[in-house]
Amino acid sequence: MSEKIRWGIIAPGGIANAFADGLQILEEAEITAVASRSMERAESFAAKYKVSKIYDSYKSLAEDTDIDAVYIATPHSFHKETAIICLEKGKAVLCEKPIGINENEMLEMINCAKENKAFLMEAMWTRFLPVINEVKQYVEKGLIGEVSLVKANFGFKGDINPEKRILNPKLAGGALLDVGIYPLTFADLVYNKETLEIKSMMSYTETGVDQDSTIILDYGSGKRAEVSISIKDYIPHEGLIVGTKGNIKLDRFFMPTSAIVEIEGEDPREIKIPFLKNGYEYEAMEVMSCIRERKLESSIMPHEKSLRILRTMDRIRKQWNFKYPGEN
Amino acid sequence: MSEKIRWGIIAPGGIANAFADGLQILEEAEITAVASRSMERAESFAAKYKVSKIYDSYKSLAEDTDIDAVYIATPHSFHKETAIICLEKGKAVLCEKPIGINENEMLEMINCAKENKAFLMEAMWTRFLPVINEVKQYVEKGLIGEVSLVKANFGFKGDINPEKRILNPKLAGGALLDVGIYPLTFADLVYNKETLEIKSMMSYTETGVDQDSTIILDYGSGKRAEVSISIKDYIPHEGLIVGTKGNIKLDRFFMPTSAIVEIEGEDPREIKIPFLKNGYEYEAMEVMSCIRERKLESSIMPHEKSLRILRTMDRIRKQWNFKYPGEN
Repeated sequence: MSEKIRWGIIAPGGIANAFADGLQILEEAEITAVASRSMERAESFAAKYKVSKIYDSYKSLAEDTDIDAVYIATPHSFHKETAIICLEKGKAVLCEKPIGINENEMLEMINCAKENKAFLMEAMWTRFLPVINEVKQYVEKGLIGEVSLVKANFGFKGDINPEKRILNPKLAGGALLDVGIYPLTFADLVYNKETLEIKSMMSYTETGVDQDSTIILDYGSGKRAEVSISIKDYIPHEGLIVGTKGNIKLDRFFMPTSAIVEIEGEDPREIKIPFLKNGYEYEAMEVMSCIRERKLESSIMPHEKSLRILRTMDRIRKQWNFKYPGEN
Repeated sequence: MSEKIRWGIIAPGGIANAFADGLQILEEAEITAVASRSMERAESFAAKYKVSKIYDSYKSLAEDTDIDAVYIATPHSFHKETAIICLEKGKAVLCEKPIGINENEMLEMINCAKENKAFLMEAMWTRFLPVINEVKQYVEKGLIGEVSLVKANFGFKGDINPEKRILNPKLAGGALLDVGIYPLTFADLVYNKETLEIKSMMSYTETGVDQDSTIILDYGSGKRAEVSISIKDYIPHEGLIVGTKGNIKLDRFFMPTSAIVEIEGEDPREIKIPFLKNGYEYEAMEVMSCIRERKLESSIMPHEKSLRILRTMDRIRKQWNFKYPGEN
């Protein structure tokens, strides 16, 4: 391994640009190659981030022995096959969320990672953010009492082009996989356990993906979460953790740089930690640290945590009787 | 009828004091009498508000021909019998919320009101507040697009004395009737229709009343509400109305003097209307206006709106299999 961790970027769209921006401040990171089905897009990305190698196939990038880690930013429905191409070549893989469209997909990816002794992690950047860690400390120390309610909203008006990912069932579109994973992760960050009962209400888009939903989840012992998501409504991106002695509010809970803590009888206080760059650097740092330590899983975000969220989303979709094309 | 509307106050506790404070700025209102089972409390109230007549029984107050309107602030479980005593004497009745512990109780009260040609209204003051009216205008004019999500939270640590109202099943305690009626009313203010499906999760106190719950309600056509309430947790008292083009947030949604409207592509704007006094004056003004016009129901808050909320709460408690002592 060279001194720097050499990254290959697959599918250089908006999120890959954000990730590459994050990498810029990490001295030990280098973007070595980019692969896209659109050469125009690959060249533009390469020029922007001074990337020397350009590939028109994901497989060619995977076969490049100068690459240590691959960041995968394809639509959800291509995550599994793309990750497997890379894992089979022993690459460390950081794959955008959701890492698969269901639990079974990730189980296949994990098998492949284990067979090839390759590192695999879902790019759920929220789990690595400093404010999130600080908020977890507040909760774990009992500063807001015993927590029994977590709430998170996330909604926006998605691209209305039915061919584009968000409305397209073939690309695993819909609110749950795209935005729902964030509030579900937020609840999981607090409770860190499997969901027991789930109840929900939802509606479909004309294209046949889930448009909006409200979901309540039981984590046992009266601990609950509530999540409202949408790809058509202007829902504030707010997270709330409620305890017997206080509560914590986070604006943009999936990428917070601050949080407001209110404890009974005290003035509200603010947790404020700006990003080093744009927030994506923290997950990249974790991947690089794991690679250097030859770990095959992150201890902050082990496979099991991704699987747990996927299982929850599978159960929710089962309630809705909602499958993606080709899903069993 | 004299020039002034002469009020009798039944059960002069905290809420009755707040109501009496509100009446102070209304020149056409006079507090003529107070009745309490505790003479000490009645005398203290009478001294504070310069009330000339004191009764130790609700019936005696009801029989006082110098009284036009009665405000009833007993615990929920006594509302029906107390209101009926007053309605039978033809008094206009403003009864604290919930007006009955279930729909059947209010139906009995309405029958009595009709037989005696007496005015009857539930003291759901939120429905009369200027900011609420302004927010309704925003929604009705479509300024935040089509609304399909209403959320409201309301939680606090209630009195932990098991004999006191909030934890006492005999006094119709619990979170739903005490605080849940506010967020349910908030959703009703927006949708103004019967709830179709309801799903919920809840837990009980050791005393056997509902401690906290999260409730999702379907109003048809993908329109939903979500309500989280508690009598043990420190839940912010926030209301949120979400549309396709924007949203409206209300702090202390049940007694707001301001609201923040966010419309896509525009700077957030604030609706701000201070109370004339403390907010209770508006429901009193409505009662007095109805009395002068010889109306038997308020058009802003007709019986049917109270019944609709009671039906919803009945259905929620039925899901929980939760009855108060003596309820069928």
